Amino acid sequence: MSRTVRAPVEADHARVLAVLDSWWGGFAGADGTRQRAALLPRLYFQHFTDTSRIVEDDGALVAFLIGFLSPARPDEAYVHFVGVDPARQGQGLGRDLYEWFFALARGRGRTVVRAITSAGNAGSHAFHTRMGFVAQPGPRQFEGRPVQPDYDGPGLDRVAFVRHLEA
Amino acid sequence: MSRTVRAPVEADHARVLAVLDSWWGGFAGADGTRQRAALLPRLYFQHFTDTSRIVEDDGALVAFLIGFLSPARPDEAYVHFVGVDPARQGQGLGRDLYEWFFALARGRGRTVVRAITSAGNAGSHAFHTRMGFVAQPGPRQFEGRPVQPDYDGPGLDRVAFVRHLEA
Repeated sequence: MSRTVRAPVEADHARVLAVLDSWWGGFAGADGTRQRAALLPRLYFQHFTDTSRIVEDDGALVAFLIGFLSPARPDEAYVHFVGVDPARQGQGLGRDLYEWFFALARGRGRTVVRAITSAGNAGSHAFHTRMGFVAQPGPRQFEGRPVQPDYDGPGLDRVAFVRHLEA
Repeated sequence: MSRTVRAPVEADHARVLAVLDSWWGGFAGADGTRQRAALLPRLYFQHFTDTSRIVEDDGALVAFLIGFLSPARPDEAYVHFVGVDPARQGQGLGRDLYEWFFALARGRGRTVVRAITSAGNAGSHAFHTRMGFVAQPGPRQFEGRPVQPDYDGPGLDRVAFVRHLEA
């Protein structure tokens, strides 16, 4: 098996959208499908490629990370979207992508990494906690996890994570 | 009347989402509402504030521009979302915001500005043409305008504009 880790190109946009539903197990139904697609417009595969990565095994898409360095907050970097093929979970692919991003961010002078996840996504919450992220306190809880209500708009509750990078 | 033009702050996110439907005249119905909200997650009001602007008249939101300088394409800048209160259209608010962004981009060494719009949005197409944008040729046409099918995902056709900046 030959693994490739590389910056995304524009043609990866359709490939990533094509796997989202199956990788997310149809989470949140048709609304979830639309939300996920809308969160990944083509622009990420044009303009944020140097801070993002595509992982392929023998040419098949198995994981991706879309992130950026905050232009307005010079200490911060942001992980926008990460996906790992469920058939490959537990092999450290997600961890490797985050560690790559942490090292990139640290090398570019960033000391804070932020990420968010849906309030109902327990698996994502557990993963971020293992990666050293802390969920910011929120006015509400969902299944014991602090939630920021309407974070991304009406009805779009999120958990907001912060990860401080070691110097 | 007192006009303020300033960088957005995080609290502007909810204010902008709150006006989108009325400013777009409910374009594309409930799907349009979801698409517009999903295209403006909170991250734009956190991380891209220095290349974005909010315009207020006596404290009331009347226009906004969300843009960024492409990290991966050092010649390019991108206008992600622009809105003008329909009651204030024809006063040059949109033009002023674009001219501000062009000047900012030029000052930061950018020579190309890109933007997209929905295939069905004739008003946006006319405005971008007046601002010197050219719609890139596409394999399909809609009402005489070149369209990139599935540009932002399945069923999400777009018109892709390019504007070259004078040196």
